Amino acid sequence: MSSPAPGKLVVVGTGLIGGSFALALKDAGKVGSVVGVGRGRDNLDQALRLAIIDRAYTRDEGWTAELADATLVLLATPVGEMPALFAAIAPHLGPGTIVSDAGSTKQDVIAAARTTLGAVLPRFVPAHPIAGSERSGAAAASASLFRGRQVVLTPLPETDPGAVERVREWWTQCGGIVTLLSAERHDALLSAVSHLPHLLAFALIGELAARSDAADYWRVAGTGLRDFTRLAESHPDMWRDICIANAVRLRADLAAYRRQLDRIDAMLASADGAALGALFARSGAARAAWLPGRRGGGDVD
Amino acid sequence: MSSPAPGKLVVVGTGLIGGSFALALKDAGKVGSVVGVGRGRDNLDQALRLAIIDRAYTRDEGWTAELADATLVLLATPVGEMPALFAAIAPHLGPGTIVSDAGSTKQDVIAAARTTLGAVLPRFVPAHPIAGSERSGAAAASASLFRGRQVVLTPLPETDPGAVERVREWWTQCGGIVTLLSAERHDALLSAVSHLPHLLAFALIGELAARSDAADYWRVAGTGLRDFTRLAESHPDMWRDICIANAVRLRADLAAYRRQLDRIDAMLASADGAALGALFARSGAARAAWLPGRRGGGDVD
Repeated sequence: MSSPAPGKLVVVGTGLIGGSFALALKDAGKVGSVVGVGRGRDNLDQALRLAIIDRAYTRDEGWTAELADATLVLLATPVGEMPALFAAIAPHLGPGTIVSDAGSTKQDVIAAARTTLGAVLPRFVPAHPIAGSERSGAAAASASLFRGRQVVLTPLPETDPGAVERVREWWTQCGGIVTLLSAERHDALLSAVSHLPHLLAFALIGELAARSDAADYWRVAGTGLRDFTRLAESHPDMWRDICIANAVRLRADLAAYRRQLDRIDAMLASADGAALGALFARSGAARAAWLPGRRGGGDVD
Repeated sequence: MSSPAPGKLVVVGTGLIGGSFALALKDAGKVGSVVGVGRGRDNLDQALRLAIIDRAYTRDEGWTAELADATLVLLATPVGEMPALFAAIAPHLGPGTIVSDAGSTKQDVIAAARTTLGAVLPRFVPAHPIAGSERSGAAAASASLFRGRQVVLTPLPETDPGAVERVREWWTQCGGIVTLLSAERHDALLSAVSHLPHLLAFALIGELAARSDAADYWRVAGTGLRDFTRLAESHPDMWRDICIANAVRLRADLAAYRRQLDRIDAMLASADGAALGALFARSGAARAAWLPGRRGGGDVD
């Protein structure tokens, strides 16, 4: 294990999440140098200009030579790319290098790590910072992105507790609130509160946009539709990977939601205003209890 | 028809919409006095304190005596209350008094007006300001609520064109952008862009809140769910009335949405990442085209 002194961070995927992690650690004085690895030269150049990273490599350049003396390698790419990245880094990691990720699903990432990381597996700490934006790329990165946000770690039974503590410290230094969950529980919770809402937002905009008279709808649409569908501008490849990776649980949550829509449709069909009003009131009260004091702040129509 | 000089406005329902309309006209110097009529004494007192209204009546007080010399009577209550209100005001209106409403559905309001307003019908101008908030009550009213917002008028074939012009002027003075549509078209468009999203948000929060382990979900839920479900804190009675009033069209839109969910579920079942990614990309592009330059401004997870 390397010393807790500022070391070297290699971020694969220098977008919103990877870039914000690097910026936050730099602000906290907790990292000596940051190496950025990305697919696009433009985004890497942007990350260099913004001093998010100190050196840049595209994925086909010799970046794995940077791994031997790295303190931490953070994979912050769409989860579908992680199996190949684990295989690429495994032979080149230093003896004390910790590996972590920022994927929105954890069981699939862990399964990939198990088949590719070999002896490095105990130094892999699966993580998910629950923060993000429909904006993407290094230009959207911010040192404050993780402040006050939940960061879930899902260590394996064989994960080195010291590595978990180091990763916990880094995220805490970024302002995150770190909790530990099993990967299965993480994927179940996030399916309902994040993956499903994304899917529903993509679905609604997609259905409206496919109508021949879609322009008429946009014209009268207000801030309610705007906020309800903000998630539909999230990175399509990232969310494709998440939905496919967590498809079993997501389909179960989608089925539960569709049963709820069945019940509501029956209330509409029978003009049962009492049942509908009671459901609306319960939902509003539940949301207000979830977000006390955070009501307001936007308009609906 | 009364003169265009500042006159007397009677607002039935001195909440967010009625209160904001009164404030905006007062700010513009376009109204002499405002009479507020409401169900709750507390909200009326609040409206008086905030100088939104100059005189207040609860519904069981003698407020209809104020109608004879009113320039405009605006009904800004849940749409389910409008039939009884039309019947209550009809015998007391002055010969030049214009009647308008701010209901989110128009065909049902017009049907009620037809059966109750009698000779006054030509002076009834159905209207819907497409602005609002999940906040409600006089305390949430703002003179700027309607600035830059669409206001749809749905006049009847027999509506007096002069009355339509007056109502158009008042809403323009509030900062609204006034357009004319048929009531049927209005209800169809708003079903898809407003009523359905509200229903879907109420449905999602209601389904999550009914789970025995709901607290675990709220704990990891981020800003994505927060924005997606903001509509679920909208006034439950108001939205119950809207959904019941527009149930036929809303059920058709809900069915179209459920067919879209069927397609997405099939993509998940077959792990068809290409189809899912293409759908997500199309949806994101459609939303970005709808809201050019308004991207960003929030976080997802």
